Amino acid sequence: MIQTPYLLFLGDAPDALAAKVAQGIKDWRPELAVGQLRLPGCNADMDIDDLTIDEAVARGAKTLVIGVANRGGVISGSWLDVLKQALSAGMDLASGLHNHLGDEPALVELAAQHGRKLHDVRIPSVDYPIANGKKRSGKRCLAVGSDCSIGKMYTALCIEREMRQRGMKASFRATGQTGILITGAGVPLDAVVADFMAGAVEYLTPDNDDDHWDLIEGQGSIFHPSYSGVSMALIHGGQPDALILCDEPNRPHMRGLPDYHAQSLELLRDTVLLLGRIVNPDCEVTGIALNTSAMGEDEASDYVAKVEKRMGLPTVDPYRHGAARLVDALG
Amino acid sequence: MIQTPYLLFLGDAPDALAAKVAQGIKDWRPELAVGQLRLPGCNADMDIDDLTIDEAVARGAKTLVIGVANRGGVISGSWLDVLKQALSAGMDLASGLHNHLGDEPALVELAAQHGRKLHDVRIPSVDYPIANGKKRSGKRCLAVGSDCSIGKMYTALCIEREMRQRGMKASFRATGQTGILITGAGVPLDAVVADFMAGAVEYLTPDNDDDHWDLIEGQGSIFHPSYSGVSMALIHGGQPDALILCDEPNRPHMRGLPDYHAQSLELLRDTVLLLGRIVNPDCEVTGIALNTSAMGEDEASDYVAKVEKRMGLPTVDPYRHGAARLVDALG
Repeated sequence: MIQTPYLLFLGDAPDALAAKVAQGIKDWRPELAVGQLRLPGCNADMDIDDLTIDEAVARGAKTLVIGVANRGGVISGSWLDVLKQALSAGMDLASGLHNHLGDEPALVELAAQHGRKLHDVRIPSVDYPIANGKKRSGKRCLAVGSDCSIGKMYTALCIEREMRQRGMKASFRATGQTGILITGAGVPLDAVVADFMAGAVEYLTPDNDDDHWDLIEGQGSIFHPSYSGVSMALIHGGQPDALILCDEPNRPHMRGLPDYHAQSLELLRDTVLLLGRIVNPDCEVTGIALNTSAMGEDEASDYVAKVEKRMGLPTVDPYRHGAARLVDALG
Repeated sequence: MIQTPYLLFLGDAPDALAAKVAQGIKDWRPELAVGQLRLPGCNADMDIDDLTIDEAVARGAKTLVIGVANRGGVISGSWLDVLKQALSAGMDLASGLHNHLGDEPALVELAAQHGRKLHDVRIPSVDYPIANGKKRSGKRCLAVGSDCSIGKMYTALCIEREMRQRGMKASFRATGQTGILITGAGVPLDAVVADFMAGAVEYLTPDNDDDHWDLIEGQGSIFHPSYSGVSMALIHGGQPDALILCDEPNRPHMRGLPDYHAQSLELLRDTVLLLGRIVNPDCEVTGIALNTSAMGEDEASDYVAKVEKRMGLPTVDPYRHGAARLVDALG
């Protein structure tokens, strides 16, 4: 568990895309960010207060989150001074970069000296159990994709937001670095050892109130040969009651795999339902979330309506149109 | 790659079952074992020569293999003397125990001193790549199970033996500790980090002659919620041309999961075929391997015939009846 609230460190992000993690926190947990810290040359802006380390501490910031992904995932020299200042001023650090805070001797030493924590969210911090497959109380919804990076995290977050606005009990459950940094907790599933993947998902979504929903962030795709094992562990560890199919139209091929064409939503529905019912006979596909970010407004509405008619399931772009109809379908 | 031939160390194995690894080597690679070394109280016997360390070295043994699994996977004090002697005499050590040779300071020091290797086959020794999903030359057959510990390894080894006897090009590809110790190479798949599972299987089964068969050892089961992610990675990383269904009749429930009943062979066939064809449209289920070890001769024959009739696929207990019919079906 990463302590909140955060100071968002944008470093020298060359563009908005590089600050994806900070943007996610700003979009989904704005109440967790007291402000941002930018270095000269930074071209990203979260449109929140620019703060120094001391100002952030004065506003109660507990953790500096590295909200920027730079080329190669390296912790650059120009960042180190700021990170050291943050530790000295009493903040923890959190990062999802490939290179670890814990591999920087200067940071490790300073953190020890000040009793602060370094959170490398790519490294599992728990010895997860082997899954026991037991039925848990509470409800679970899993976003499953036809491909990687297709909107599964945003879909789960949209559903959580809509549920909370309705006063329903709902928890987004992060399974990737960005999701963990957004919410301050979760499981970095793609870094977990194979035998413990499904157990890590069970750990992430424990027994809960009967009317509580876990909105589980999906990973990879059962159709993506590089990562399908992770997707499988999410279906069997998550024991979802409801599956939301996530798709982005017009992808020329599977992400990173020119030889693999997109599969149909029908095959996705049939495959995940077959697999989901192995652990939960009541599992249903309850809706479809389309990522229409590359389309204009009219084109998107037409496309969504067409898919809804074809599939006979509530279909929306949840980020564009809201997740109300997906939540309606969950009862 | 573990150097051969081996001296099989049986320690103080309380019974034959505890010496499963040694038995596997004896059964499948007898030419690799120059002899066995047993301690007082050992109740297992491979029916090969009992040798001292020096005698084993004289016969050319390159590696002492711990062929016994003791309670808790611990390296007991009574074993340490023998292991140290082996290192001093110039042998490497190989172990599949939960506790690692590399965690025993006395062994680490002695190995360094004598330039010997400690092989802990539960630890991946390679930085596996992320799977690229590319089609490889050569043929691949994967054993898939309705449950864990159901005969997948023996099935793949039986097929390899039959193929070699026919002069076909065939390689058993180990994906678990016992298989790795039997053959001296492989991937400890359940210990690989999630993102690299499918890549590890690709690494294990690279491009090969067009008429060469990889016989890939399965792990877990697509029906077993604790390990299904590993099974999924084998199907997508292995890109099998042929799938053999492995089953053991009359299991009361899935291994370790009293709440999970066995699923039908029909559902197993349909599920693995659906998943296999995502990466290889030509993938077929070509046969069924039944583990009838709990049945008498007549009962086993009757049962196998009944399943063959029901499923319309060549069906055998390959350990009991040989794998000829499974190999016939592979062309």
